[in-house]
Formats: sequence, structure tokens, C-alpha cells
Amino acid sequence: MRADGTVPGRISRVEGTVRIVGAGLLGASIGHALMRAGVDVALADTSRSQLRLAVDYGAGRAAAPGDAPALVVVCVPPDVVADVVEAELRAHPDAVVTDVASVKLQPLRELRERGVDLTRYIGSHPMAGRERGGAISARSDIFVGRPWVICRDGETSARDLALVESLALDLGAVPIEMTPEEHDRSVALVSHVPQVVASLLAARFVPAAAESLELAGQGVRDTTRIAHSAPELWVQILDANAAPVVEVLDALAADLAELSQALRRTDAPGSRRAIAEAIRRGNVGVERLPGKHGQRRHFVSFVVMIDDTAGQLGRLFGDLGELGVNVEDFRLEHSPGAPLGLAEIAVERSILETCVEGLEARGWRIASTDDD
Amino acid sequence: MRADGTVPGRISRVEGTVRIVGAGLLGASIGHALMRAGVDVALADTSRSQLRLAVDYGAGRAAAPGDAPALVVVCVPPDVVADVVEAELRAHPDAVVTDVASVKLQPLRELRERGVDLTRYIGSHPMAGRERGGAISARSDIFVGRPWVICRDGETSARDLALVESLALDLGAVPIEMTPEEHDRSVALVSHVPQVVASLLAARFVPAAAESLELAGQGVRDTTRIAHSAPELWVQILDANAAPVVEVLDALAADLAELSQALRRTDAPGSRRAIAEAIRRGNVGVERLPGKHGQRRHFVSFVVMIDDTAGQLGRLFGDLGELGVNVEDFRLEHSPGAPLGLAEIAVERSILETCVEGLEARGWRIASTDDD
Repeated sequence: MRADGTVPGRISRVEGTVRIVGAGLLGASIGHALMRAGVDVALADTSRSQLRLAVDYGAGRAAAPGDAPALVVVCVPPDVVADVVEAELRAHPDAVVTDVASVKLQPLRELRERGVDLTRYIGSHPMAGRERGGAISARSDIFVGRPWVICRDGETSARDLALVESLALDLGAVPIEMTPEEHDRSVALVSHVPQVVASLLAARFVPAAAESLELAGQGVRDTTRIAHSAPELWVQILDANAAPVVEVLDALAADLAELSQALRRTDAPGSRRAIAEAIRRGNVGVERLPGKHGQRRHFVSFVVMIDDTAGQLGRLFGDLGELGVNVEDFRLEHSPGAPLGLAEIAVERSILETCVEGLEARGWRIASTDDD
Repeated sequence: MRADGTVPGRISRVEGTVRIVGAGLLGASIGHALMRAGVDVALADTSRSQLRLAVDYGAGRAAAPGDAPALVVVCVPPDVVADVVEAELRAHPDAVVTDVASVKLQPLRELRERGVDLTRYIGSHPMAGRERGGAISARSDIFVGRPWVICRDGETSARDLALVESLALDLGAVPIEMTPEEHDRSVALVSHVPQVVASLLAARFVPAAAESLELAGQGVRDTTRIAHSAPELWVQILDANAAPVVEVLDALAADLAELSQALRRTDAPGSRRAIAEAIRRGNVGVERLPGKHGQRRHFVSFVVMIDDTAGQLGRLFGDLGELGVNVEDFRLEHSPGAPLGLAEIAVERSILETCVEGLEARGWRIASTDDD
């Protein structure tokens, strides 16, 4: 993809008008991205002010009565997805209708119970979002490189499937096929339960003394970062995916109770082993998460000390550029009151030595590397 | 502090030999930092190979029988701290003895029970560490800007306290006084329980399907990052601080059970409110954590799209440097298979506009900012 957001040698694959129902964060972000790709985007929203905002922000034009969309993308809150999908299927008999809700089984079940003909409906879910919602937070880039789950079924035609896949591809996402059940169990594990855990942990800081929280480091900041998420959205997601979430939460509660029991009686036989085993299983589990490029093990990191002044990072990255180094990951660590920061840089293992030697030759102070 | 690690206009405040017992990650890191400051560092370790490694890595010289240290820093695993502190107080009757263990009450209680004269002992705890242990991972910079808790008591002389504070200051840390009880309750909340939670959550990924984990995004990666920590160390920390940890874990387990109950009966009166309230309390709690410079609210962030090629970050930071922009925080987000990354940059609110306009004028593609 080029800096202007277009993909070299490729034109948009979605043809015809795309109607987006719900001009919040996801709807407006999809609209933005499609507009950049030259697609005619017709926006609809029950809130006139939200719609006007999204149009003002360049996410599309307001939908008109005569629109004949090829594709309808339903981007409304989880609890009204079924209603809106049903209405859109009825209103646009030639359109493929998809939705982007975080939960896939509940709306499908609801539509089936109502006896709606779902031949032209394909549920989908882009694994993208932000802590903040609303058209005002929309960004055309949030789908780039992210998985976009598509839940086809036996009735789905190849042509209709291709249209939804094109949408995902146009937005820079990676289409992945799953059943609604697989999808919902997966997101319970890697998204919904982590949200619950981060929120409950962060909630424990509410009654804490400010001095206690002063001791917080990067670890707990990372662990609770997503606790910034919006309650309004999450109550709907958790409600709609309650069964798979409860299943993981119960397993986690059992693990917690077991560990707590071991900690109550650390002298009892097997207690220390149970504690060590819990931490070790965490090691194994976290290693299974895909990293950047899905291949984190090829990368090693090192740390450079930088002054807290303008231009220092520019000089550092300028030097890295001159050395021909492609930075795979970067983390700036900076603690309260510190006069300088630590820049942790990940590079491919094969160029680590060149990189560290080159930076040292240019006067940078490098701490020991993670090359072990 | 300057790039060579020394602080302008200030010489090391620790005078005389510093004896470090235990040449693992913390011991060797302290040794490194003191050596840079020109202090005579005498290292001791029960493992000859660990000691040799630390000496080879420049963390100090091997301790000699005639050493008369002014300060002894005990950097051994939590479960032998009391033994070593007692032995060091006896062996060096003129030295102040401190330790850096993650738990402060248990060793103190043990020493008191043995009737050891603790006039010259001051427990301390630098809030620093790494996921990896051992002298091989030592870094002189890990204390920079981090809190260093010092637990004085009524018997502590001003001179002895000043010596331990000097150690912290020499290493770039920020000394904070606390009682052992305050310290242990604080680290249970902001360090030990987050570790347990991250480990138990990550352990849930062990039996998961690889396809499910493919959907993982930055949120869950952040939430479980510290699950990489070493089991050997954590079993000791959790054992030594079991009571305060259990207290927080039990509160968390009760919160979890309450939420799980609400999710089981989302139609029951008050259920949805309980779910929303849990997420909202998480919002409030996470906002209480100190950020960079302890004042995260003064900063706003924006996102720049960058190609995944060498030199791009250099050009970006070069441009930021030319614009006179001091980057307060930086996060590079990069997903599996993506041809480009998103650089999230935090700056002071007052310069956001200049910064975004300046970058756009230089051809950078900026997404909407977080200025709301």
C-alpha cells in the first residue's frame, strides 16, 4: 500500500454503491476507506447528528431513497443487528448484506427464528477497533493487516462471498473464514475475556492509595491498557456472547481459586509446584499468540538510552535509516520524573550485530541486547 | 543524565566499596551502574560461574577477604534474603546493609524473630526488572526514573538512610519511603496480582486452537505480555507475599463471580447495569495509574501510516525533530501480514496542531487525532 492509501497496481474490487448503516466508529471508518478507494458510499444512521458528522468527516454521502446498493454493511450496535439486517434484506432485494458485529451467532439465531431468508446475508467481523467510539474517532487505517472474519454458510453463493471478501481486501484486511460458533468462542478467549480481566483488575485500583499506584510500572500499565474501553459497547458485546465468555471466565475463576488456595498454604505439599506451574503455563500460552508478521521469534531487541529532548528520536531513526535497518518493533519507555527514556527496538536477528555496532559507532549508548 | 550515563554537575554520592551479594539480574545491573559511576564494586555469589559471568560483563570485581564495604547490597532470591542479611551484618560490622527483594515484610519479620540487631539494616526495593533474569541480562539503565522504595524504621540513622538513598539516586532511581506493610500491599496490587492475572489468562491459550489465536490483536497481547516472566522467581515472590496477594485475588475472584453471574442471567433486573458498572470502574481505575511523567492527560496522540521499509521511521522522526516536536510516547503497531505499520505518537496538547499540519505538509498521511 502506498502513502496515499491506495494499493499499487490494483483498483478497488467493490463495484457499485456501498450502503453503510450506522455511522459510528466502524461504519465511518469503512466509509472513509471506501471513499479513498473511489467507491460511492451511502451512509445511513438513526441519529441525524451522527450522520451529519460522518458526512462532514468525509465518510460518504447521506443515503438517498433511490439508492440501489450492491452491498449493505450493517455497522450498528450488537443488540439491533438482527433488526437492521432483516430490514436491509427486505429494502434492498438485490444487495448482499453483511454486518460487522463482534458477535456472530446471536444475530444469526435471531434472524433464523424469525424465518428470514438469509441467502443474501453473510455475517462478518473485522478484528479492529479503538478504545474510543463514534464517527469522530473514525480512521480509514484501522483494518490494515487485521483479520476480517467472514461467516459463510451452505447457502452463500461464491459471487456474494467474493463481494464481502473484496470489502475486506479493499480496506487492507485479511479475510478469514470461520463458522459463527468458532468465531464467537475465539473472540471470547482472545478479546472478550481479556477485556473483562483488564477491567476488573483496573477496577481494583479505584479504592487504592495514590502512593501504592506510584509503584506501578510498564507491566501493569500494559495489563490494564484496554480497561479504557467504553462500557456502553462492552455491555452489549458481553451480553451477546455471554455463554462462551462465561465458559472461559469459569475456567479462569477455577484457576484463580486453585492458585489462591496454593498461596494460602504455601507449606503444603505441591503448593509451590502449583504456583510455578501456573506461571509456566502462562509462558507457554503467551508464546502461542501471533506477534508482528506472525513470526516474533525471528526478532531480537535492544535498548538505546535517549534524552527527553526534541530531535533525539529523529537522530536515532536517522542513524538506523543510514544503517539500512528496518525497525520491526519499537517501544518507548519513560517513567514518571525520568530525565530520559529507553527506546526498545526490535530488528531481525541477522542484522542485530551490525545495528548495535553501527549505533555505538555513532555515539549511542546501547544496553545489553536480548540476544539469548 | 547524559548519554554516557553520568549526571551533569554531580559526582557519585556513594563513597567507599559497595559489596553486592548475588550477581543475578539486579545485582549485576547495580554493579554495572556503580562501575560506570566510578565506584569500587565487590561482587559475591554462591555460584562461581554466575560470579565469573558478572565480572566478565563488567559488573564489578570478585569480592576479596579484606574488603571493608561501606554498603552491602543483598540481591539474592527472596527466600534466602534473611539468612544473607544476617550473615552480612555479622561479617561487616561497619557497613550499612540493604536488600532489593520484591517483598519487604517477610525477611524483616524473620530477622526480628531471630533477634538480629537491625540498626544497620534498611530494606529497599527498586521497582525495576526484566522478563529475563541472570547476570547475562543485566543492564545499568533499568533503574532510571523508576521508584526505589526504602523502608526505614525508628532505629535508622539519617546517615545510613542517606547512604541507601544515594545508591538509588546514583542509579537514576527515585527514592520513595514506605513502611514494609505499605510496600507489600502496594506491590501485591500493582505488580504481583497483575502477574498472576496475566499468567492465568495466557495459560488459557495453551489448549486453544491456533485459528482462534489468529484473531488476537494488540489488546490481548498487551494484557498478557508479562506472562513471559520466569516461574522460578515468581514462585518465591508470591510465596513471600502470599497474604496481601491472596487478599487482592479474593476480591478479584468475587468481582469475577459477580460478573459471571450477571452474564448468566443478562435478562435479570440489574444484570446489564452490573456489567456496565464493572467496565466503567475499570475506566476509573486505569486512569489512576501514573503515566509517563505522571501526567498522561496533558498528552494527545495521533497516528501516522508508515511503510514497512528501512528509513521510514528515520524520515518521520527527522521531520518531527525539524518541527521541534518532543515525542512523549510512541507505539508502533504492526499486524501479521500487514505491508505497513501505524505509528501512534503522543505529544503535548499545545503542539498537536503544529505537529499534524507540519507532518501533512511533509507528505505524511495522518489519521484523525485523539484530541477529544
